[in-house]
Amino acid sequence: MPAAVPNFDVVAIGNAIVDVIARADDGFIAEQGMSKGSMRLIDDETADRLYAAMGAGLEMSGGSAANTLAGLAQLGARCGFIGQVADDQLGEVFAHDIRASHIAFTTEARPGEPATARCLILVTPDAQRTMNTFLGASQFLPATALDADMIADAAILYLEGYLWDPAEPRAAMRRAIGIAKDNGRKVAFTLSDAFVIDRHRDDFLALIAEGAIDILFANEAEIISLQQTDDFEAAVATTARGVPCLVVTRSERGAIAIVDGKRSEVPSEPIDQVVDTTGAGDLFAAGFLAGLSQQRDTISCLTMGAICAREIISHVGARSQVDLKALVADRLNA
Amino acid sequence: MPAAVPNFDVVAIGNAIVDVIARADDGFIAEQGMSKGSMRLIDDETADRLYAAMGAGLEMSGGSAANTLAGLAQLGARCGFIGQVADDQLGEVFAHDIRASHIAFTTEARPGEPATARCLILVTPDAQRTMNTFLGASQFLPATALDADMIADAAILYLEGYLWDPAEPRAAMRRAIGIAKDNGRKVAFTLSDAFVIDRHRDDFLALIAEGAIDILFANEAEIISLQQTDDFEAAVATTARGVPCLVVTRSERGAIAIVDGKRSEVPSEPIDQVVDTTGAGDLFAAGFLAGLSQQRDTISCLTMGAICAREIISHVGARSQVDLKALVADRLNA
Repeated sequence: MPAAVPNFDVVAIGNAIVDVIARADDGFIAEQGMSKGSMRLIDDETADRLYAAMGAGLEMSGGSAANTLAGLAQLGARCGFIGQVADDQLGEVFAHDIRASHIAFTTEARPGEPATARCLILVTPDAQRTMNTFLGASQFLPATALDADMIADAAILYLEGYLWDPAEPRAAMRRAIGIAKDNGRKVAFTLSDAFVIDRHRDDFLALIAEGAIDILFANEAEIISLQQTDDFEAAVATTARGVPCLVVTRSERGAIAIVDGKRSEVPSEPIDQVVDTTGAGDLFAAGFLAGLSQQRDTISCLTMGAICAREIISHVGARSQVDLKALVADRLNA
Repeated sequence: MPAAVPNFDVVAIGNAIVDVIARADDGFIAEQGMSKGSMRLIDDETADRLYAAMGAGLEMSGGSAANTLAGLAQLGARCGFIGQVADDQLGEVFAHDIRASHIAFTTEARPGEPATARCLILVTPDAQRTMNTFLGASQFLPATALDADMIADAAILYLEGYLWDPAEPRAAMRRAIGIAKDNGRKVAFTLSDAFVIDRHRDDFLALIAEGAIDILFANEAEIISLQQTDDFEAAVATTARGVPCLVVTRSERGAIAIVDGKRSEVPSEPIDQVVDTTGAGDLFAAGFLAGLSQQRDTISCLTMGAICAREIISHVGARSQVDLKALVADRLNA
């Protein structure tokens, strides 16, 4: 039975996080024992200690997959989000922002402790971001909270690797993959972070081997970590054999996609000044998936990804307040 | 008895507010019945309704006097803040940011309802900001919460007119003025907003007549509102007779100060693009007061104000994440 035409372009399951962004110098990153450019999970106590030590911040809704959806929605895609906030002020902020971005969001807030997830992000003078995530309520997304109808009704189910760490959402995502596949939908997955891959490499390789992933997003460090090789091209080739569509971002060296064995490549979009790299990968995925949902060719999809990534790294924070649709239209029609 | 050398340059009493900033078009401002460029007070219910209607936001600590202190502290001044937050997540954000800015803050969080104050700020394409303030806990700053030692130990007590609306902080500010005067300190006051002046003109004129105010900050609309005249120069002259130091900001037309009857004037600092005018007056006051505390001449104080105002309107939000001290040094030594 062919799948019915879906009402959603992309439904994502991801961490429901509020980012707290502050500037820091390299000395602070070292003192606090962070690995620059990566994401680490921290407990409540560490979050309090680090927050007390870091500078004045600004707060914005974040979460990798949620950032991607915010970009997708700005580009005109019909989106839904599944993720767990707590019943607190930061949970209200997250829920407001996702709904204000015209994204369907039906997961009910979780009462009591722990609080809504926070990501303490330090941005160094080189514009690199180092993330410290207190998962809080986000790690308690139960499989029973999945909106199965929404997943069944989406052309693409998008999952973030970050959420593979906690057990409950991992189980929920496995169930969601089943729902998507049963309904003839595609599954997109982002590898998120090299350290996350270190913890879950076998799971991720198994998902690929099972044919569970139709579209895979990674950056250079992640694809190399996944295949445990120093040879980037070999890692790409090996991975591409397991997924119909592989997208690899390479920062200032652009991005490549291998779709059904055919390789396409774009350079990065020129930028005057990189301010904060937070959300670069998330917004690249947004642009690429928006292109796919508009049935564009692979080069156009990659270019849309590069445009959105460039926009997001030109300012602080991983949510855009500019008109991405106009940016893309200007560039593609230029 | 001469006053002892104070340990603080400026101690301020102000609203302890977290700003929620979103872009909006002029149609939205009109639909919601707002007066563009002004501040209105809203209740909990209106705040919820407006928040639900407005776009995705970003959150930053705000509050007029607190913004001024954040700028002052960045410029090297020793500062203290007195203001009321609730015992909630946004209260933690405010308290963290003020302390992370190296500002002494001893007011204890208030348990229970109402929540920490929020200001819903809509920024229109012309970069103008329209503010909707839910005062929450901030309006319950009791006179008993004043840190009298801190006030007595500050060269300048700085008060924001916005806080004159609620009764408890108004009483607290009156008491604080008494403490400052008893200790031979100066009192600085910002008129804040033309509508605030409409509600409290008699009080403000009485404070001036009593000689309670040593340094008065206003913009054009405010000084005109205060003196209820259309003649700007007449309003300035009348007001200047009542205060030893009057500072009037005129947006792109620069600023003037009349100190002990002597008038000084500076143009505005050149800027490529105004992004968000939120905090322009707050940061002008920061630069001017920093100059005063460094015993600079009036033109230098005004120039420092103009530099800080230019910086803050070049990006979203009323707290700066750049090195104001370096900006000022570069400009004054150029």
